[in-house]
Formats: sequence, structure tokens, C-alpha cells
Amino acid sequence: MTAYETLSRKFKRLHALQEAAGVLSWDMSTVMPSGGAEARTEQLATLSVVCHELLTDPALEGLFEEAAGDGRGLSDWQQANLKEMRRRWMHATALESDLVEAHAKACKRCEMVWRDARPKADFAAVLPSLTEVLRLTREVSAAKAERLGCSLYDALLDEYEPGGASARIDAVFADLADFLPGFLEAVLTRQQDRPAALPLAGPFPKDRQEALGRRLMAAVGFDFDHGRLDVSLHPFCGGVPDDVRITTRYDEDDFMTALMGVLHETGHAMYERGLPADWRLQPVGEARGMAMHESQSLMIEMQACRSAEFIAFLAPLARDAFGGTGPAWEADNLQRHYNRVEPGFIRVDADEVTYPAHVILRYRLEKAMIEGTMEPEALPAAWNEGLRDLLGVTPPDDRLGCLQDIHWYDGAWGYFPTYTLGAMTAAQLFAAAKKARPEIPEALSRGDFAPLMGWLREQVHGAASSASGEAILERATGEPLNPEIFKAHLKARYLA
Amino acid sequence: MTAYETLSRKFKRLHALQEAAGVLSWDMSTVMPSGGAEARTEQLATLSVVCHELLTDPALEGLFEEAAGDGRGLSDWQQANLKEMRRRWMHATALESDLVEAHAKACKRCEMVWRDARPKADFAAVLPSLTEVLRLTREVSAAKAERLGCSLYDALLDEYEPGGASARIDAVFADLADFLPGFLEAVLTRQQDRPAALPLAGPFPKDRQEALGRRLMAAVGFDFDHGRLDVSLHPFCGGVPDDVRITTRYDEDDFMTALMGVLHETGHAMYERGLPADWRLQPVGEARGMAMHESQSLMIEMQACRSAEFIAFLAPLARDAFGGTGPAWEADNLQRHYNRVEPGFIRVDADEVTYPAHVILRYRLEKAMIEGTMEPEALPAAWNEGLRDLLGVTPPDDRLGCLQDIHWYDGAWGYFPTYTLGAMTAAQLFAAAKKARPEIPEALSRGDFAPLMGWLREQVHGAASSASGEAILERATGEPLNPEIFKAHLKARYLA
Repeated sequence: MTAYETLSRKFKRLHALQEAAGVLSWDMSTVMPSGGAEARTEQLATLSVVCHELLTDPALEGLFEEAAGDGRGLSDWQQANLKEMRRRWMHATALESDLVEAHAKACKRCEMVWRDARPKADFAAVLPSLTEVLRLTREVSAAKAERLGCSLYDALLDEYEPGGASARIDAVFADLADFLPGFLEAVLTRQQDRPAALPLAGPFPKDRQEALGRRLMAAVGFDFDHGRLDVSLHPFCGGVPDDVRITTRYDEDDFMTALMGVLHETGHAMYERGLPADWRLQPVGEARGMAMHESQSLMIEMQACRSAEFIAFLAPLARDAFGGTGPAWEADNLQRHYNRVEPGFIRVDADEVTYPAHVILRYRLEKAMIEGTMEPEALPAAWNEGLRDLLGVTPPDDRLGCLQDIHWYDGAWGYFPTYTLGAMTAAQLFAAAKKARPEIPEALSRGDFAPLMGWLREQVHGAASSASGEAILERATGEPLNPEIFKAHLKARYLA
Repeated sequence: MTAYETLSRKFKRLHALQEAAGVLSWDMSTVMPSGGAEARTEQLATLSVVCHELLTDPALEGLFEEAAGDGRGLSDWQQANLKEMRRRWMHATALESDLVEAHAKACKRCEMVWRDARPKADFAAVLPSLTEVLRLTREVSAAKAERLGCSLYDALLDEYEPGGASARIDAVFADLADFLPGFLEAVLTRQQDRPAALPLAGPFPKDRQEALGRRLMAAVGFDFDHGRLDVSLHPFCGGVPDDVRITTRYDEDDFMTALMGVLHETGHAMYERGLPADWRLQPVGEARGMAMHESQSLMIEMQACRSAEFIAFLAPLARDAFGGTGPAWEADNLQRHYNRVEPGFIRVDADEVTYPAHVILRYRLEKAMIEGTMEPEALPAAWNEGLRDLLGVTPPDDRLGCLQDIHWYDGAWGYFPTYTLGAMTAAQLFAAAKKARPEIPEALSRGDFAPLMGWLREQVHGAASSASGEAILERATGEPLNPEIFKAHLKARYLA
């Protein structure tokens, strides 16, 4: 067996165990009775330790050296696979095991304190734990930056967005941050001049919402022989590529949120399902980072399903599902609901126009904290000031401000920018898809996603991690990430 | 850390991974979409390899030697734990890895051929694969017998019934085999003299069956914060002690089978739940073999829930659930259904009286095949002759004969006797429980399982694997397994 083959076997084992953990996590969030939590936590912790040991096996170093020597005998995909193996291995071996353990414990502790502090809007209560998390996260970023040869922030970003560079994000976000306040004002003015959306009267029974959701999932191309739709407190896309499990939650007073949520997760699911079957359980066969993943969910939710074409298809189905009649149930009114813009405090409730402001704020703050130019004490004030500058609103308390998201409290530093990079990528891919397949909008008006999905399979899903996200985007669209395309999309949708 | 502590850590890790596999198997049988099978098989195979490697880690031998030296410092439970660790390790290390692999592959292949051959009643089609499975199973039993210092058959039995001895089973089964034909004749004669059971007219909607099942599970003491009831093709009890997952399947023309099935699995579940919390994830904290496990399911299903007392409690609940009225829905008629005896071909459909005959037949045949005094070619004829001798009926074809059970075809040799050992153990434990807590029958007539369950927790569940099944039984009932008690139970129920 060559060194490459040995590595490939080892990573296959690692990946199969990670898949097992993925299914167990799905179970924990959907069907597990509360009393199973302790045992499940132990199972997941054990799997995580076993995976970490596989990835830090001292034999790997020699195998990587040897495999680098066979380079010429490897196909492009094999070389990309080797590169991805190496990237994972470098992340895992950059840290002393004491640091890994201390960091994991600090995150767990802080998350627990945060769960209690958030509803009480008590930032002071969580500040000591957050400070400790940050201290250790800085150590992590320093160790990884040294190993990977990159900046402190990029060392963290690389886990979520392989090869991502904050220098490029800075530029793109600066452009957006310049654009957004003026644009938002124009959108709000225009919105005021138009008739308000007519309310949709519920209740909307859960089973009808679910049936409609399944109908639309099927339209997008979701294969129920290879996946499930269930309920969980926080919607997510889990499982494995051949058994993708998405979740939602239903509110009987509002069907619109769950429905778009289902479509969002369906976008994630389609990406997983479209990954190349020949590369299952190999690093190169995995999805290409969180920004690309988010681009696929936003492609379906924001680009395709909030388009006038798709809403024209949706309106009669929604009327049928809930027995709706009258002008409130016409497509133009549904569209007014789905494209309503309103500055608010909460990121996860934000619309497409204001969402980037929430992300830019978090990105700037976490980068400053990682780089040591800001300390957590300063967070509440900096948060409120930043949100006011970007969106013109100020949270009345920290529950609606810097306590709202779990990310920093449970250690996911470097994740935030991927949301907006994903939104921009989605806009750019959708524009290119429509250029390549001009029939897409008309197909969407019939609920036919095949032309769009065919293009995505070819350009994005099938590429998996064989190239960087940037290279995949450039190959698919002819240019690197270009904020003008996202801005043009926003202008067309909200100011046309 | 002492050698014992190191071992205890290693076995905890092993056990947590086995629990993970258990949850994944539950998922596979209940909620997994068909397209997930390949990925799941890979996940389970990987977990199995990792577990095998943990158990065959060369470091264990020295640790066991060292731990044997610390013996005096260990509590009784710790010593029992060490013994159980050692037993598992000896099973795992008795076989060369080539044999393990060849055996696993042969079983998998044979099972696939059997799935095809069974509906066609085509024993000849599966004979070559079965012969190969037996050849390798004999090699396994020879290697294990040498390592464990026991007979060929006992080496296989030990996996399901630790410390079990075929010499004792031979004696007990010979006694039963003598008793059964005459007893069966007496029961059938008596049954003929009584009025036939009045039919219960369906349909019985699944949701009502499920609701009634849950009501009775709760009565037995099943805690839905620590477990679930779901549907699967083959009912089973899975999950982990703090999250026990039982399954059933519903037939809308017959509610009685699923209902007793649910109570049967609830008995298994109560055993798992009652295992001592202090010994979770340690070998000594696990259930004590398959015979004791089956005794707990049959304790609930056969001893408690087919008693006149419980059926008096059940009858009004069943009437409520299905809107039943008239004499067919009276307790005495339900009891006639639930205690009906009828010799048949199929083990899993057999009643309490004829079931042991099916098991004794299989035990004798598999023992002869393992010992080499019989070859698989002779199986169909030997099966039919044996069943005729024991039950007076002859299967018309092998589908209803030696092809009916999966066990031999997928490699579970040595398992069969535990079913009837379990039934006998259940009768003996129930008799002792009623002696110790005379209020048990009256409590059951009110659907109150607390006195029975309290006694079982104390005598059986809480003991886990701290002693042999025989020792637990003897401590709880004052004597070793005694066929007279099982026979007395049958006489009291079917001839009184």
C-alpha cells in the first residue's frame, strides 16, 4: 500500500466515526428523551477523543512526507485530497492536548453560564467565563497561526472557511458597510410609499405546514429515500450525504417562517446530496467550507424562493394548504411579506438587507478581540455603537445585543463572516446560473428546480473540496467574489 | 493510576462506543430512510473495528496480570468487574483476526442467501453457505474452547449466557422434553372441553393501540423521560439504560399481539433501566446474559400480564380503547385468547406451552452440529422428525421448518437455549417474588407493578453482572434453576 492509500484508509475511518457522531447529534436534537443526555454526551465525547487520537497519530507525519514524494503518481483529486488531509492534521496537531482540553472545558462552562445569563440580560455574569474563553482562544489562534503560517484571525477562520483570508473579507465588508446605510434608507422610504402587506390569518395547523414543506422540498429535488424532515428547537441540516436530515420548528400563527426555514435547510441538504459519491468518506469529498454551504441554503431560500417567479408558484399551493382566500393570499402580498425589510436587534430574525450589518459588526468585534485590540469588557458598548452606525438602532439590553448568539460563548470564533460571504456567493452564483441557463426563472415559476440544480451540481456540489471556495466560485462565475453583484441583486429586488 | 483503574477507563471507552453503535442500530431499524443503509453499515463496521482493536490492545494482557496482583485492594464489585473485563478480552483474543474476518464475511453472505431462500423454501440453495458458516463456527468454538477451557458448545454459549453449561441445560431440557408431550395433550383436551374464545372484531386503529400500549408501559413503570416506543419491522429493545428504546409493529386486525409484544419489550427495558447507575459503562454494570434478560421480558409478558389478575385490569382499558362491548370483551374471554395453546410450526408465534419444544429442538440440533455429530445436510429431516416427536406436527416445507429463524444463518450459534432458560427463570423468580411480596397478584389486578418491580430491582436488576446468573437466581429464590417450578406454573395456568 502506498503512503497515500494508507492515509486514505485512515481518513476514511475517521470520517465514518465523524458521521456516526453526526447521526447521534441529530438524534439528540430531535428524538432523544431528556434523560438520555448524559449517556449521549459521553458517547459523543468518546467519539471525539477517538477521532482526535486518529488525527494526531504520530505515524501520520511520516506518511505525509512519504506521500508528498509520490505526488506525481496522484490524480488532481488525490492531490487535493492529500492537501485536505494535511490541513485537518495540521489543525489537530497545532495544539498541545492540555490546551485542547482546557479550551473545550472553558467553552462548555461558558456556554452553560451564558444559557442562564442571556434571558436575564446579565452580561456581567458571563464576562469572567467569556474572558477565559477568549484567553484560551487567543492561545489556540496563536498556535495555529504559527503552524499554518497565517494571521491570528485567519488561523481560526480556516476551520470554517479553508483558505479564507481576513484581508479580503475586510475589503469586501468595508464596501458593503459603506453601501448599506444609504441603501437601507432608500429601501425603507420606498417600502413606506407602497401599500403595507395584508396580514395572513392563522392558525396554520402544523401537519398542513409540514405537508406543504415536504411538497416544496420535493420540488427542489430533495429525495426522501435519502433524507428526512423532523422537528427540533433550532433548525439545522445534519445526517450524512446519503441520509441528509433537516429539521424545522412550526409556529401555528405563522407558516411563512418555517416554510422558508425548510427551504433554507433543503438548500444545505441538496449540497450534501450532490457531493461526489466516488469520494464519500474522504476529506476532498466533503463540502467546501461554511461560506459555500451557506451560499447553497441562501441560493434556495433567498435567490430562488423569494423571487417573484417562485412566489407565483407558491401562492396557490399555500392557499390550498391553509384554505386561504382573498387578496392577502395573492402572490404579490406573499412577496411583500417575504421581502419586507426592517432593521432589528436580532440577527437570526433579520431580513436579507439588514443581515450583513449584523455579521459585519460581529466580524469586526471578534477580530479585534482575537487580535487583542479590544477586551470583552468593552463588548456591550462597542456592540451597541456598532449596530447604531450600521443599522440605526440600539438594543435596549444585552439580551437583544451582545448576548444573543451562542458563537463566542461556546467557542465558535471565526465563524460569523461565512454567513454574509455565503449570501454574496449565492447572489453571484445565481446570476451566473441564470446567464448559463436562461430558462431558470421561468422554470422556478413552475416549481421546476431542475435547471438550477443541474447547474449547481455541475459547478459547485460535484466539485466538493477539490479546489478552494474562491477557485470554485471563479470557475463557475468568471470572477472572484464581487460585492457589486450582491448589491445589484439587492437593488433589483428592493428598489426596482 | 492502578492497573484496575486503567482497565476501567479503557472499558468505559469501549462501552461508550458500543452504546453509540446501539443507538445507530436503533436508528437504522426505525427511522433511517432506505438510502442511508450503505453509509450506516460503514459507520457500524468502523465502530466494530475500533472496538475490536480496543479489546485486543496488546497492553491489556499486562494490565490484567498486574490487576490480578492488586486483587485484595478491590471491592467485590470491582473484582466482578475485572472478571467480566477479562471474559470479554478472552473472547476477543481467542481468535486470529483472519478467522474473525472470514467468519463475519461468511455469516453476512449466508444471511443474504437465506433471505432469498427462505420464502422459496429452498434449503438446498443455502446449504453451501450454511456449511461454510458452520465450518468457521466450529473453528471459532474450538479456539474459544481452548482459551476458556470449556466444551465446544459452551464456548459459544458463553457469549450469550456467561458461565452457562450445556451439561446443566441437557438435564433441564431432558426433564422438560419428557414432560411436555403428555402435558400438551392434557392441555389440548381440556381446552377442547371449554368454550372457544369469542372473536374480537377489528379494525383496531394503530393510534389507539399505541395509546393503550403506552398506558400499560407507564403502569409497568416505563419512564418516557428515559426511553421511547417506536415502530420497526422486528420488535426489539435497544438504546442504552438511560434511554431505552423499544419497538413494536401494529396489525389493525389484531391488537393483542402488539400489546403483549410491547409488554414483553417493556420487561427488557425495565431491566436495562434498573441496572445500577454507579456502574454505567463498566462490564459489571451490564445485564447478566440473555437468559436473565429474557426472564425479565417474560416476567412481564407471561408471568404478570397473562395472569388472570392483570387481564382483569386490562379488559376495561381495552374496551375503552377500541369501543368494545359484550361478552367477547370480558376478561375471561381475553384470557382465553391470551392463554390459548396450539402446536404450530413457527417458534415466534408459539404459545408458552409449546415454545420450549421449539427451543429444545434447536438446541439439540445446533449442539450436534457444533460437536460434529451431525452435518447440515441432515438438518431438514432431523428438524421435522424432532418437531414431530416433541409437538406432534410436521412442517410441510423448510420455510416453516429449518429455514424459519435467522440465527444459524447469520452466525448466532449458542443463542437458542436462552429463550427457554429465560422462561423457566421467569417462573421461578415470579414464584419467589409472590412469596416475598404476597400483595403482588392483587396489585397487578389494579395495574400496580410497584411491588413486583421493587423486588426485581432489588434481586435482579441491581445485581447487574456482579455474580453469575445462577448465583443471582439462587440468592433471589433460594435454589438453582428448578424445572419443577416452571412445570407447576404451566399446570396452574393451563390445567387448573
